[in-house]
Amino acid sequence: MFDMASKEEVLKVLNELLPTKAKDIDDKNLVDKDVIDRLSSAGAFNAVSLGMRSVYEVVREASKWSPAVAHIIMSSSTVALRFKEEGHIYSICITEPGGGTDIKANLKTVAEEKGDEAIITGEKVFASNAAYADRFLVLANGPKGPTLYMVTRDPSVEVEVQDLFTFRGAGVSRVKFNSSHGIRIGTPGKGIREALETVNYERLGYGMIGLGIKEGALEEAGSKALRKVIFGKELGEFQGVRWMLADLEIRSRALDALIRDAIDKAEKGGLDPYDAAMAKLLGAEVAQKATWTAIQIMGGTGFSRGSRLEWLARDARMLDIGAGAREVLYDFIGDLAVKKYRGA
Amino acid sequence: MFDMASKEEVLKVLNELLPTKAKDIDDKNLVDKDVIDRLSSAGAFNAVSLGMRSVYEVVREASKWSPAVAHIIMSSSTVALRFKEEGHIYSICITEPGGGTDIKANLKTVAEEKGDEAIITGEKVFASNAAYADRFLVLANGPKGPTLYMVTRDPSVEVEVQDLFTFRGAGVSRVKFNSSHGIRIGTPGKGIREALETVNYERLGYGMIGLGIKEGALEEAGSKALRKVIFGKELGEFQGVRWMLADLEIRSRALDALIRDAIDKAEKGGLDPYDAAMAKLLGAEVAQKATWTAIQIMGGTGFSRGSRLEWLARDARMLDIGAGAREVLYDFIGDLAVKKYRGA
Amino acid sequence: MFDMASKEEVLKVLNELLPTKAKDIDDKNLVDKDVIDRLSSAGAFNAVSLGMRSVYEVVREASKWSPAVAHIIMSSSTVALRFKEEGHIYSICITEPGGGTDIKANLKTVAEEKGDEAIITGEKVFASNAAYADRFLVLANGPKGPTLYMVTRDPSVEVEVQDLFTFRGAGVSRVKFNSSHGIRIGTPGKGIREALETVNYERLGYGMIGLGIKEGALEEAGSKALRKVIFGKELGEFQGVRWMLADLEIRSRALDALIRDAIDKAEKGGLDPYDAAMAKLLGAEVAQKATWTAIQIMGGTGFSRGSRLEWLARDARMLDIGAGAREVLYDFIGDLAVKKYRGA
Amino acid sequence: MFDMASKEEVLKVLNELLPTKAKDIDDKNLVDKDVIDRLSSAGAFNAVSLGMRSVYEVVREASKWSPAVAHIIMSSSTVALRFKEEGHIYSICITEPGGGTDIKANLKTVAEEKGDEAIITGEKVFASNAAYADRFLVLANGPKGPTLYMVTRDPSVEVEVQDLFTFRGAGVSRVKFNSSHGIRIGTPGKGIREALETVNYERLGYGMIGLGIKEGALEEAGSKALRKVIFGKELGEFQGVRWMLADLEIRSRALDALIRDAIDKAEKGGLDPYDAAMAKLLGAEVAQKATWTAIQIMGGTGFSRGSRLEWLARDARMLDIGAGAREVLYDFIGDLAVKKYRGA
Repeated sequence: MFDMASKEEVLKVLNELLPTKAKDIDDKNLVDKDVIDRLSSAGAFNAVSLGMRSVYEVVREASKWSPAVAHIIMSSSTVALRFKEEGHIYSICITEPGGGTDIKANLKTVAEEKGDEAIITGEKVFASNAAYADRFLVLANGPKGPTLYMVTRDPSVEVEVQDLFTFRGAGVSRVKFNSSHGIRIGTPGKGIREALETVNYERLGYGMIGLGIKEGALEEAGSKALRKVIFGKELGEFQGVRWMLADLEIRSRALDALIRDAIDKAEKGGLDPYDAAMAKLLGAEVAQKATWTAIQIMGGTGFSRGSRLEWLARDARMLDIGAGAREVLYDFIGDLAVKKYRGA
Repeated sequence: MFDMASKEEVLKVLNELLPTKAKDIDDKNLVDKDVIDRLSSAGAFNAVSLGMRSVYEVVREASKWSPAVAHIIMSSSTVALRFKEEGHIYSICITEPGGGTDIKANLKTVAEEKGDEAIITGEKVFASNAAYADRFLVLANGPKGPTLYMVTRDPSVEVEVQDLFTFRGAGVSRVKFNSSHGIRIGTPGKGIREALETVNYERLGYGMIGLGIKEGALEEAGSKALRKVIFGKELGEFQGVRWMLADLEIRSRALDALIRDAIDKAEKGGLDPYDAAMAKLLGAEVAQKATWTAIQIMGGTGFSRGSRLEWLARDARMLDIGAGAREVLYDFIGDLAVKKYRGA
Repeated sequence: MFDMASKEEVLKVLNELLPTKAKDIDDKNLVDKDVIDRLSSAGAFNAVSLGMRSVYEVVREASKWSPAVAHIIMSSSTVALRFKEEGHIYSICITEPGGGTDIKANLKTVAEEKGDEAIITGEKVFASNAAYADRFLVLANGPKGPTLYMVTRDPSVEVEVQDLFTFRGAGVSRVKFNSSHGIRIGTPGKGIREALETVNYERLGYGMIGLGIKEGALEEAGSKALRKVIFGKELGEFQGVRWMLADLEIRSRALDALIRDAIDKAEKGGLDPYDAAMAKLLGAEVAQKATWTAIQIMGGTGFSRGSRLEWLARDARMLDIGAGAREVLYDFIGDLAVKKYRGA
Repeated sequence: MFDMASKEEVLKVLNELLPTKAKDIDDKNLVDKDVIDRLSSAGAFNAVSLGMRSVYEVVREASKWSPAVAHIIMSSSTVALRFKEEGHIYSICITEPGGGTDIKANLKTVAEEKGDEAIITGEKVFASNAAYADRFLVLANGPKGPTLYMVTRDPSVEVEVQDLFTFRGAGVSRVKFNSSHGIRIGTPGKGIREALETVNYERLGYGMIGLGIKEGALEEAGSKALRKVIFGKELGEFQGVRWMLADLEIRSRALDALIRDAIDKAEKGGLDPYDAAMAKLLGAEVAQKATWTAIQIMGGTGFSRGSRLEWLARDARMLDIGAGAREVLYDFIGDLAVKKYRGA
């Protein structure tokens, strides 16, 4: 499939394709097969070879133009890094129609095991990457309770892309498993915990997507509007505008340091789930504030339909929900804080 | 055209039509003629007869489902209230392609006067209501400088609806006046000041639209999600969720008091431009925070394309730009504050 | 005691005394008897004669220099307005050493009734005005449960002023009732509800104190620093500074409208507890933000010990705790919001 | 003076002394000589030997109880690290009575040079550490313009400790140099730039002080209040409280990563002034929010005068002014951001 995955090679493809393709991806809610193939050939789905750090740098860079493409790479890499296997495009199938927060209560998908193999039946929603994936990581109720399985795509797997107003083109889908064939890859009964461990990589990735969206939004608005003259002065000379930008620089610099520190720690001993949760929360803030600011800087023309700022703003909004709603992560972090500070 | 405009009659039409039509209006970026006619027959464009207070209540109510329709009524009423004339649908044509903040520097449209009449030539953007209007309030450079004119629609007026991602269906358009026939209705040379006086009514109206969007968003998310059971408890029982809602109640209650006070004052002595600016700024905050909160409460399903929350969120975003960007209004209010506090 | 209470008379005394006395009051944690007497003679404790609106205007004005004096007038007036009796200085004694939020669980003070009279024994903390009061409104466990009593000051009532860093001079005290003589003035067993009804007047008053602190802080910093020249420009000419002031003007204007509306409603039908709670919450925000901003404007000299900004900032902080912590009020408002929006 | 400075030794002294001495230091606005001597013997003023990383860890730890003591160590170490000389307690004397933001316009102190030596005459305010220092780093107008000099303490140097409500005990003083003897240690005419380079180390230090204040405040409030039972539940079990703590954890974690990254970079190639400015700004936010939250958690008892929370809150406030006001740093960062984003 590829000789040697390299960050440079992947970045070259992204920088070549995304500025011209990103609008189309958002419009059609789909990435064309040739774009997926180009990325694949460049090694974008070889997360183990690339290494965690390079994967996340790729994710950040892709997000400047297409958070959807960044999401595809990130979500697939999440599984690859967690299970040390690469070369596939993976979909993560956890949430069911009842909702994503209370996973246990909503888990209806079942796995009938036969040795290490299993027959999976059930329905998932918000399944990342499903439009492009050849492998599906599925949480299902096995004989010993919730367990992770890997399903290979075949006609028993029905995929229907969801029509969302965010991350269009990321292939987020409703997926039905009709007695689909899978292999148990997790510990029996430990599926929820293992699913969440996998999700941690996505959360860190959302932090990076947040940084990329911020860069993209400010590049876009900055290059088009900061030199515009209003009341005899360039827009970039107004103190209020400078302060708005400064605020974003401060918060994104701290987030960047947090993510790089989290990756350092992860390479030594495993990803800290608190780092991952915090990265996502701060990424959501930075991205939403940056797209808001960018539109203010652009003024009325910032509302043009089908513009880069429009889809970046829509994508930024999702960072507060996907892979763990803001509220759920505050509970998670807050529980630890209470234990730390309440004393003996 | 109508016997007697009454708030009740207009509200009846709005409540009957909007829940079923609002999505279509947003999709097509257009309000069907029969809806405009129904509103017109009910008296929605008879602002003088309705009275300022009723007009704004109608605007608020319409915004729960369709801020676009609210905008049509508000923008037309603005002109009607300011010039004490009603029964037409008015479009406000101030901004030109160079941008809306520095009006003077960008004003290229010219009016050649012949007595009280004038020939208008030029191009406007972000002209409210232009898709539906039979009268256009136009700022143009007359013999004595910027002056307001009223143009009656005829084939010399070219209207092209803009494709924005916000307030779709409000008829915001690019308008070309090709030697169009107008009547001077403002004081020669005082057009910019008079245009801004008119815009004040819009600003107050945006405050009301903000309150309406907030109501609509919380009704939508609340009725669908607050009774949902997560981790054994109704969503509405979580303290964090209650606090998010409380915050919105507090800020919208204060905004409501401010707007009602501003209307009281306006009915006695004229609309205070600071009240108007503040209403718009607070309305923008309330509306954006409410739609953000509503989507958090809905979770993943809050991202469905074409949903009520989607268009309410897109419309809410515009409140920080239209009729005076947030930054411009902060300058306006801040100048007065400095004078007040810096002492002699 | 006085001929006729008038707002003008009280304001005259306040404006004459406070600018010179406020620092001393804060330093000594006490208002001198002659100041209390001057206020009393002017009618500051005749809330029924003054009327609710004038009382709150007096409270706002006093807060520009001495929130402590404002608090004395407000807290006494609260009881006067609630029980339609005036001419005394009232102290409100509800909270006990265990804490003020969960009143019921912490209520240890007991009242032994003999007809309408009662013998009160117990200890209160954070009792407003106790240093100056001749009457104490006391919540105690009577024969039918928590009930309100009025105790007249005599040697059985021990008052020890608390050494707090906020509202110094307001006479907030630890009070011991040693078989003190009281009269039942509330409905037996309904004391907690009735105490909270009384507290509502205080909450509205805190909103006004917040507005007064804001005015005082910006007057102080503005007159001393906005004309200062930095990098060749007056400080007040910097856009960032103007925006900081604008933000305060916006929020205080809305709060002012809310409070005046709440008073209108209260004069017609009784004080709305939600209005009162919201006024306090917004007052706390405005006051804290204003004192923060004022110190930023002053720079290093804003940190001088014993300065007006110092005590205004310390007093502002308390608005988020006294008469109902921010968190408790968010619960209160949030509960109603959930009921409103969760649907049937 | 000491054998070998070690972080452990300094921390041991701090942990032993500060919990019992911190209140006294704040009360008296002075650190006793024996405490200074103990710190000195332990190596607290041997920044070069300790190394930058250890110095900042010491500063953070000291701030949990006494930001004033932390400030003494930090400010002295700033000079030591910048000029690679240690074993003295250094005072930084830059600001003059006219104000600290526009340094150039306010610089009146003059240096008359004789070879490398100089006679310094002038007056400084907000001079850090002056109560304890034996060396003063002084910005003065030399023959070639603003230049840095080092003055050794002798009777010609008059020190008067300022009575501020923040960082009491840090020895911040008004200092008069009356023909005092100094040595030129900076490049002639480059004194302002070099002074600011020195200040960068202080800014980074304020970031650490912010983290320490946060820890101290939450330790204090947490251990005293989170197990308190209200309405039948421990305070720490309330979701709203958990979220308040979570928010602080998130922001302090990111700040911690930023500071550690800044130190890594500084050890390789010099301290990045943007890192330093950002650390201070985020430290100010974290510290003020943490002390605010801690007082909310404590309720009324959080207002006791002379409590740990009180002085931590007063000290936290200063982080937005000292060593560069928030507004000045936003300008600094914003200028760079505009250059980055406005394009060619």
